[in-house]
Order: sequence, then C-alpha cells, then structure tokens
Amino acid sequence: MKAKDLDKLLSYLEEKKKLIEETLEKYFPKPEALSERVISAAKYSLFSGGKRIRPILCLLGYELFQEDSERVLLFACGIECLHTYSLIHDDLPAMDDDDFRRGKPSCHKAFDEGTAILAGDGLQALAFYFFSHKELVKTVNSKRLLKAINLIADAVSFNGMVGGQMGDLLMEGKKGDKKVLKWIHERKTGRLFTASLISGAILANAKRKDIKTLERVGRALGLAFQIVDDLLDLLGDEKKLGKPVKSDLKKKKLTYPALYGVKASQELARKEVEKAKSMLKSYGERAENLLLLSEFIYQRVN
Amino acid sequence: MKAKDLDKLLSYLEEKKKLIEETLEKYFPKPEALSERVISAAKYSLFSGGKRIRPILCLLGYELFQEDSERVLLFACGIECLHTYSLIHDDLPAMDDDDFRRGKPSCHKAFDEGTAILAGDGLQALAFYFFSHKELVKTVNSKRLLKAINLIADAVSFNGMVGGQMGDLLMEGKKGDKKVLKWIHERKTGRLFTASLISGAILANAKRKDIKTLERVGRALGLAFQIVDDLLDLLGDEKKLGKPVKSDLKKKKLTYPALYGVKASQELARKEVEKAKSMLKSYGERAENLLLLSEFIYQRVN
Repeated sequence: MKAKDLDKLLSYLEEKKKLIEETLEKYFPKPEALSERVISAAKYSLFSGGKRIRPILCLLGYELFQEDSERVLLFACGIECLHTYSLIHDDLPAMDDDDFRRGKPSCHKAFDEGTAILAGDGLQALAFYFFSHKELVKTVNSKRLLKAINLIADAVSFNGMVGGQMGDLLMEGKKGDKKVLKWIHERKTGRLFTASLISGAILANAKRKDIKTLERVGRALGLAFQIVDDLLDLLGDEKKLGKPVKSDLKKKKLTYPALYGVKASQELARKEVEKAKSMLKSYGERAENLLLLSEFIYQRVN
Repeated sequence: MKAKDLDKLLSYLEEKKKLIEETLEKYFPKPEALSERVISAAKYSLFSGGKRIRPILCLLGYELFQEDSERVLLFACGIECLHTYSLIHDDLPAMDDDDFRRGKPSCHKAFDEGTAILAGDGLQALAFYFFSHKELVKTVNSKRLLKAINLIADAVSFNGMVGGQMGDLLMEGKKGDKKVLKWIHERKTGRLFTASLISGAILANAKRKDIKTLERVGRALGLAFQIVDDLLDLLGDEKKLGKPVKSDLKKKKLTYPALYGVKASQELARKEVEKAKSMLKSYGERAENLLLLSEFIYQRVN
C-alpha cells in the first residue's frame, strides 16, 4: 500500500470514526437513577478505542450509491452497539473468559458479571432503538429501513453471530475440520460484517444485482478479516493489540493458522482480499475508500 | 369474577395462546449444524408453559381498534421472545441465581451458562427479526411498524427493562423506599407490559389520544401484575407456581409486601386494576376481553 493511499484511508477512517463517536455520545440514553451503573458499563466498553470498522462498512456501502452518508449515521451507530454487545458477552467467564480487551480490563472485570450481561443486553436493545429512530425514519424510506433492520437482526440471530459463537464454544479443545471452521467464522464474524456493508447499500436504494455482488464482497472481506484476527492472536504484539496474545492456542480454539498453518492462512487472506477488490472494480471511483480498506485489512498482518 | 366471564376469558386466552405458539413454532429458525444446541435451549425456555400475557396484550391493544389481529401475530411473537430472553438472563447465577422456572430446571441448569446467555441473546435478536419480518411489512403500514419497534426497543433498553433489572440487583439486601421500589417495578415489568399493549394499538392505527389513555391503562395493569407477582412469591403454592416460593425473602428483595405489608399490597393492586377498568369503559364492547383480563390479573392472588 502506497504511503499516499494509506494517509488518505487513515484520514477517511478518522473522520468517520469521529462522526460515529459523536453520534453515539449524543444519542446514548442518559442515566435515570439506578440505571447509571449499567449505562456506565456499556459506555466503558463502547468507548474503549474500537476501530468502528463495521459501522464504517455501512457508510461505505451507502457511499457506493449515494453521497450523503451522514443521513444513516444512526443506523451505523446501531451496528457498533451490536458489535460491542457481542464483545462484552464473549469475554464473560461462561464464554471465552477473557480478562482484557483493548488494553483495559474487560467489562465484567471492570464492573461485575451481572452488570456486564445487562450492559450487553441493553446495547443490543439500543441498536434496534437506533435502527428505528424517528430521525432515521425522517430521512430514509421506511420499507428500505425495515429491510435493513431485518437483514441485521437475522445476521446476529441463531444462525448468525449467536450460532457462530455457540459453535466456537462447542469446538473448544475439539478436533475440527476446515468445513467446521468455515461454518463458525462465517457466522461469528462474517454475517454481521457482510450485513453491515449491505445494509448501507439497501438504505441507499441499491439494486438487487448490486446487493448480490456486495454480499460476495462482504463475505470475502469478513473471512480475510477473521483470518487476520487469528494470525494477530498468534503473531501479534500484545501491547499493540491490548490483549494477551496466543489466547486461542491456550484455549485450543479452532483457527485458520491452527488448521492451515501461518503461510497458507496469509495466502488465503490475500486471495479473499483480491477477490473482493476485483468485484469492486466496476464501481469505479466511488469504491475507492472501500478498496483501500480492503487492502488495509490484509496489511494489518504483513 | 363470574364463572361465565371466567370461562369466556379462559377460552379467549387459550385460543390466542395456541395461535401464538403455532406461529412461534412455524417461524422459529431451523438448526444449521452447530447452532442446534442454542436453538434447543431457546425453545426449551420459550415452550415451557408461559401464559403469553404480553403478546396477548399486544393483540388486545390491536383489537380495541381493528378486528383482524392475526395480521400482527408475528409482532406479538417477537414480544414473547423478548420476555423469554429476560427470564433466561434473570435466572443466571450472576443475576437472580434461580435454579427453577415454571417447574423445570432453568435454562442454564438444563444446558449451561454460556448456552443460556447465547439463547437469551439470540431470542432478543429474533424478536427484532420478527418485528421487521417481510410478512408483517406486507400487512402493516411501514411507518407504524417502525414506531412500534422503536417503542418496544426503548422499553427493553437501558432506562427500561435492563435498567430495572440493574436496579433490582443493586437493591438486593439494601434498605429501599417506596420511590425506589416504584422506579424498579415500572422498568423491570411495567415498561414492556405497557409497550406490549400500546404497540398493538399503534399497529392498528390508534389515535394519539387513545395511545395516551392506553399508556395509563398499561401502567396500572403492569403495576398490579407485579404486586400480584410479589404476593404470589410470598403466599403462593410452590407446585402451582413451578418455582420455590419465598425466594424474594431469602434474597432480601425489595417487594411490595415487604414494604407495604400484604393487606395494603392487595388493596394497591385492586386500586390499580379498578383504575385500568374505569379508563377502558369508554371503549365499550371492544374492550371486553381486556377488561376481563384486568380483573383476572387481580384474581390470581385472592
């Protein structure tokens, strides 16, 4: 990746991240008496330095077809709430049992388990509150909004993110094959990743044909992203990641490097990114930021 | 309550319960490979003999203004998914730590904690999947549907159900006053109870004035329902309830009988039910089933 391109991407990401965080802050519920603790816990995790990739994918999906992506910022913010809820619950002792996240104690460590469960529950509810917010209803066609909500809800439900996390827990310490690994990753990361991109396109009134293309793009990028995540856990820098490395090894998790080896995993991620990029070519200039982001996903681990 | 009225109500409730359960069964996601366990856990709790009061309130709210409430069955089913998710998470060791629910081991006892957390998470997502389902979009005005979704999402978010449960946990073993008790109950039970009734009315295109009236009706009934629930825990029959009684006492929970005494609590519930009934009078015959249900709520404990 050229230095000039990297600069351009980083400034785009920074700008969108700022908009997303300002909107989250502005619309987050204010504490009423005894809800203060659970709201603090949710905001502790929500504002802990996430990259905001998923909400940015929503904005990028929108920008492929329309310019004013600020109209759907609240929708993008809902997606980030869903992602944060999944991280809080994944870290719980009954799940992945991780004490650190982004260099800070995870939510149940900074607060307590009951509060962390409720913080995640509240964030999922808040996501759908944002998706159906009257400000969005004012600016977006209602039928398209309902379609996008339905897509995201399905992506995080039993055969989506929740099912993927279940599979991940069930396979801990067990011998799995490539098919099982693919099944889990597609659901645990892939479905919300893809739905984030597509939801933006739906909100921008993209045609069915384009939605189909973007579904393939999202899947490829989601898979690359997850492989890179697996590789970072194995090879990454603990300080930069903000959490202990090699945790997947310790938990005997089913990962790409564990099953394919490091080199083949890197090649697989590369291949998926190239696949996504080639599908995006036909969108010309409007796809520029998404193309740069695709390349960036791969660069994280090389 | 006259025997004839009771028969009429029970047969209405039975009919609606059957429709709701058939719809839940029909639309519930089918297991794909590793999601089987979490889907089984969710269905274990969802089909464990609940009364389906909240989804029926949604249908009753609809029937005050339109006849064909079967059009909004999927919406009502989503509400039941939310209620069941809240029960599964409330029973967890980090929350109320209850081993039994409706005469059976609670979800985390029949399965395990990780699976129970995921089952609740999946049910919340499924609720919003149902709310935005294409079958509903076909039959209901999209703007009204979004308004109902937004109302329900708010009712179960940080200053609604989740906040109420946080307050309940925070006050365990502590000395609380009547104001705190009201704050908790309004959120823990009242908000979803009221939103269930109002959502039906919104879907049936009720006027703003009617929505305001029904908000007061819902609040009164929700409060009566919660007081009766507190009384049943203290005075009820363990076998009939399907869970150990006097659990609130053991956990030093803040309840109506604990703060007001049994007799004053019964009178308070009676007063709330009468308040609801008097507000419903102006709806004439269309409110008959809702009036009977209001009376029934109180009868459970007398």
